[in-house]
Amino acid sequence: MKKVLGIDIGGTNLRGALLSEDGKVIKRDRVPSNAGRGIDYLVDTLAKFIKNFDDQNPDCIGIGIPGIMNQKSGILTQAPNIKGVNNYPLVKNLNESLGGSTPFVIENDANCAAVGEYWMGAGKTASSSLVMLTIGTGLGGGIVLGGRLWSGEDGMAGEIGHMTINSNGPPCNCGNNGCIEAYVSAEALRRMISENPSIKNKLAETDCDKYPEALMHLAEKGDKTAENMWKELGKNLGIGIASLANILNMEMVVIGGGLSNAWDYFIEDTKKEVKKRGLRAPSERLKIERTALGDDAGIFGAGYMALNRSQKG
Amino acid sequence: MKKVLGIDIGGTNLRGALLSEDGKVIKRDRVPSNAGRGIDYLVDTLAKFIKNFDDQNPDCIGIGIPGIMNQKSGILTQAPNIKGVNNYPLVKNLNESLGGSTPFVIENDANCAAVGEYWMGAGKTASSSLVMLTIGTGLGGGIVLGGRLWSGEDGMAGEIGHMTINSNGPPCNCGNNGCIEAYVSAEALRRMISENPSIKNKLAETDCDKYPEALMHLAEKGDKTAENMWKELGKNLGIGIASLANILNMEMVVIGGGLSNAWDYFIEDTKKEVKKRGLRAPSERLKIERTALGDDAGIFGAGYMALNRSQKG
Repeated sequence: MKKVLGIDIGGTNLRGALLSEDGKVIKRDRVPSNAGRGIDYLVDTLAKFIKNFDDQNPDCIGIGIPGIMNQKSGILTQAPNIKGVNNYPLVKNLNESLGGSTPFVIENDANCAAVGEYWMGAGKTASSSLVMLTIGTGLGGGIVLGGRLWSGEDGMAGEIGHMTINSNGPPCNCGNNGCIEAYVSAEALRRMISENPSIKNKLAETDCDKYPEALMHLAEKGDKTAENMWKELGKNLGIGIASLANILNMEMVVIGGGLSNAWDYFIEDTKKEVKKRGLRAPSERLKIERTALGDDAGIFGAGYMALNRSQKG
Repeated sequence: MKKVLGIDIGGTNLRGALLSEDGKVIKRDRVPSNAGRGIDYLVDTLAKFIKNFDDQNPDCIGIGIPGIMNQKSGILTQAPNIKGVNNYPLVKNLNESLGGSTPFVIENDANCAAVGEYWMGAGKTASSSLVMLTIGTGLGGGIVLGGRLWSGEDGMAGEIGHMTINSNGPPCNCGNNGCIEAYVSAEALRRMISENPSIKNKLAETDCDKYPEALMHLAEKGDKTAENMWKELGKNLGIGIASLANILNMEMVVIGGGLSNAWDYFIEDTKKEVKKRGLRAPSERLKIERTALGDDAGIFGAGYMALNRSQKG
């Protein structure tokens, strides 16, 4: 049976696992990614990490990276959280570091997560199509159609956060107004809290980065304003999912990312809105599931893609 | 060289053409579709139409129909403009009428139009991906990704008209609010005209069905209110196209349907909005083109799908 090394490069850690062809974890490892020290340093770290698995003889390697990969050219076009990336020839440079011994693929991390959930996670039983939504600081996504990742002409498909749901809505980080990310993300919660004096006071001692957890705790304690904020977020998520279902008629949506921890506080409103706005057949068919693999989705997805689409290193 | 019979079933006419494998028209025909007389009568008409091409020995047949086809079951699940359709076993019944001589495929007409434009129309040079928008009474669509139609799990992908662009927007025929179809369609123009006394008076003598043409003539004559209505429609179209580009990162959008005749009056505002709301790479890459095949797109697309995916009849 083939073995694949699946790797997920995060802002803090570089994590990987040797997987069997049928998705079993054989060995795991993690090291600091030091993404702030720049892309060249990261490629060194990555090459060393991979060499540590040499004794396991992986047949191929899959790597998920928080940036946009152009598959045709092998160039990492952009990666806001890795220092020094501007059209970086990642495939060429990693190839040189590795010495061309093992074939590898590199893909955007949100795309890897979608494929991971499709292969071994919430979408394991999905017949052919799935959209993954990762709700964290922003709202990312990945699209699997006909059993294959659709990553777009520039590797940028799945930027679902920048679907407009209210053309005159609040400002989004992308510079526009009313993107779904401006309603459904940690950034969106921050805005909603800043606009609501009652909650703002309750969270006066809380660091901005901890707002989602703090808002969850308030909702747990029965705070109506906090509950309503989650319901509002859930409803807006449902508006976006209904549009996706009408456009793509996919079998499943999988929801991951840090904010998915608040699942119980938003999901009913999401489902209600999908039922309201989705056309009958696509919305009745649609399963809405929570991530099953959590942080491991990217590792599994990168591995699956390597098993199915390895370029010779 | 193979020959295929491409057929487009419309509400008024049933039109078809024998095409060579490289997309040349060998022979054309058209008959009234009499869709109002019911689906059984339509299947008879279709079978007779096909038999008229028997002497040409087509290798396969492609049929576009204004309804939703479930490809797995061969069932026409719904078709609002054909009388008596409710989970109609179209493949089985047509097969019996034709006697199983020639393999055929049946697909939704908007999907066929998308594939036709991809094969021989505006998207002839598109490398792999295209979204077709058909702006008529409503707003229909079809999605080609990786050189293949994506028709969804129930054959309902491409219902792009029911993407929400303003969750509190005007009512849509589907029962919801703020779908793009409620802003970009002949129905939407009718609403906009009814809400604008100045234009309403100017069109007092005009039949509702002729509003789009009449509004074009007013814009041609320099009527500012009419011009602004087309600009508003164009802008809202751009909001939707930007979302699609961010989600799918496709190479091209092709715009067809009756309202595409007003191209010169709306397209600048569409392009401006796509540039504003689209992420950089997907929006810079995106080509926005007018239909090249017009009413023939469905015939070509049905033919192409039959050549590439014929089920034995």
